[in-house]
Amino acid sequence: MADLVKFDEQAKIASVQGALGLRAQIEQVVDAIFEQGYHNICWLGIGGTWASAMQATVHMKERSACEVWAENAAEYLTTGNRRIGTGTVVITSSVTGSTQEVVDAVRKAREAGAIVIGFIDRPETELARMVDHLISYDENEQLKFFMVADRFMKNAGEFDEYDEQYAEFDAHLARALVEVEKRADAFAAEFASKHAEDPIHYFVGAGNQWGATYSYAMCYWEEQLWRKTKSITSGEFFHGMFEIVTKETPVTVYIGEDAQRPLSERVARFLPRITANSTVIDTRDYPLEGISERFRGNISHLVMHAVNNRIDVHMEIETRHPMEIRRYYRQLDY
Amino acid sequence: MADLVKFDEQAKIASVQGALGLRAQIEQVVDAIFEQGYHNICWLGIGGTWASAMQATVHMKERSACEVWAENAAEYLTTGNRRIGTGTVVITSSVTGSTQEVVDAVRKAREAGAIVIGFIDRPETELARMVDHLISYDENEQLKFFMVADRFMKNAGEFDEYDEQYAEFDAHLARALVEVEKRADAFAAEFASKHAEDPIHYFVGAGNQWGATYSYAMCYWEEQLWRKTKSITSGEFFHGMFEIVTKETPVTVYIGEDAQRPLSERVARFLPRITANSTVIDTRDYPLEGISERFRGNISHLVMHAVNNRIDVHMEIETRHPMEIRRYYRQLDY
Repeated sequence: MADLVKFDEQAKIASVQGALGLRAQIEQVVDAIFEQGYHNICWLGIGGTWASAMQATVHMKERSACEVWAENAAEYLTTGNRRIGTGTVVITSSVTGSTQEVVDAVRKAREAGAIVIGFIDRPETELARMVDHLISYDENEQLKFFMVADRFMKNAGEFDEYDEQYAEFDAHLARALVEVEKRADAFAAEFASKHAEDPIHYFVGAGNQWGATYSYAMCYWEEQLWRKTKSITSGEFFHGMFEIVTKETPVTVYIGEDAQRPLSERVARFLPRITANSTVIDTRDYPLEGISERFRGNISHLVMHAVNNRIDVHMEIETRHPMEIRRYYRQLDY
Repeated sequence: MADLVKFDEQAKIASVQGALGLRAQIEQVVDAIFEQGYHNICWLGIGGTWASAMQATVHMKERSACEVWAENAAEYLTTGNRRIGTGTVVITSSVTGSTQEVVDAVRKAREAGAIVIGFIDRPETELARMVDHLISYDENEQLKFFMVADRFMKNAGEFDEYDEQYAEFDAHLARALVEVEKRADAFAAEFASKHAEDPIHYFVGAGNQWGATYSYAMCYWEEQLWRKTKSITSGEFFHGMFEIVTKETPVTVYIGEDAQRPLSERVARFLPRITANSTVIDTRDYPLEGISERFRGNISHLVMHAVNNRIDVHMEIETRHPMEIRRYYRQLDY
């Protein structure tokens, strides 16, 4: 196989391995909160972070009896939320540490009495200084969130496979994900070539892939590639949106292996009847060596992310649109 | 003023007045549940009902300390939700009584021990027989939901203005809403004429208008008019989506008068800098005679709905697309 474009295998492996290496620190923070007691868990974010928050929430809902939800920072700042107070654990994340809504929402949550765990990549920022428990490490937001979620559930007796799962992840996950990227590359090149000029592209997903689907459409194709998209959940697809799908409409379904898999399978089965332009990306098509069948559903969103990494690289080439540039975001005041 | 097309003023007034007339029945049901005790409130739906569930949720979050959320029926049937059980009040709605996901989700919630209040328009259906408390009356789903929400909050000491608000609504709301339709008609005709052939139309909203914005884009323009749309919350607009807006992009912002108004105002202020094709629909532009300033925010979604009723009528004419027809929904098995 020829070398992949824009693909530093060692750097990618080191990045995931390093994120997994945060586990001792995460366990210390979560265990201390568990000892003190808490009564609900709020995943806080906006844009891409809010998408990750939705993913952590659906992951926990599958197992946990705890009150858990994804809070949008802009909504919290205006509508408020009386469920956030003493006994609330707020978990958030920011690469730059300067997303204004998140800074303001963390301040408000702390004033209400919540404990805040912050994954702030830049430890020198104001936000990093504001949180109760700071963990600074680049990228891997979803993996960080799921590690926190899993530790809370293990402590609550809701995730007995915790040690076994993380032993597998520590040993195999980083390698498995770069192998996904390699395996996906030829498909990704073809997909980008076919869809780079779509007037609008539809993305459908569910479960722990839904947040990732929403975020991929909005934070990658719209924000970074300036391509029009719409994302919809697999369940909602049949309640309105599908009426505009006809033979030419480009629709991509992401199928994961968590509990909502049947919802996406249903969309994938139906689509060929109404469009000749659909694509199915199924995490089950990727081997993930060393990862047990029963843990695959917990990382479906990471497999999808790995496939999307390759689509991004080829979309950037096909569109000749450098993904770093922004028209408006942080270019203008608004 | 010439008579409005497709506008039966007396029928519209009677419909809203009749829905308000359900209040004695709603109070009886809610008060009985309040006496027994409950610990959380789950608004359950899919598609349009889920959208109404999101609206009831954000309305309650503004005031209530109770755990309240919108549950998507398809997600509940797959991922499940351990927060639904004894002590949970589930509220749902169905016009036909035959939406499969809602039927199955209500069964599952009742098996888990929840009490279900169902607004099922057709009392002879299986779903109507399944719910613990049945209220049958045509349409007005959002108003029904808000009446339940408000009664729970009044009983909990979180909505002291309840009696005063509903005295105003009983006396003036039905008339105020038809006056909105009349006032909106000329604008709606112009809007439909301008936007009927848009390749895609963007709708932005927040607060108790967000569910309505999502539902209007999906259940009306997509499902009933076969027009492409994307909807986005006012807060999320600045976190990705706005990068694809340029001079020609048609974007409509719905501004309500609830706590999230500033989020939508911000979008409305910014849009003219990047598109010459934006529209602002602001509930504040409609007088609502007899309704006090402090209650206007609680019915912003109904004002928006009244404006949209007129847009629908004119879109149907402009597109020559009868809104009753469906390509796929309930036409095919899927």
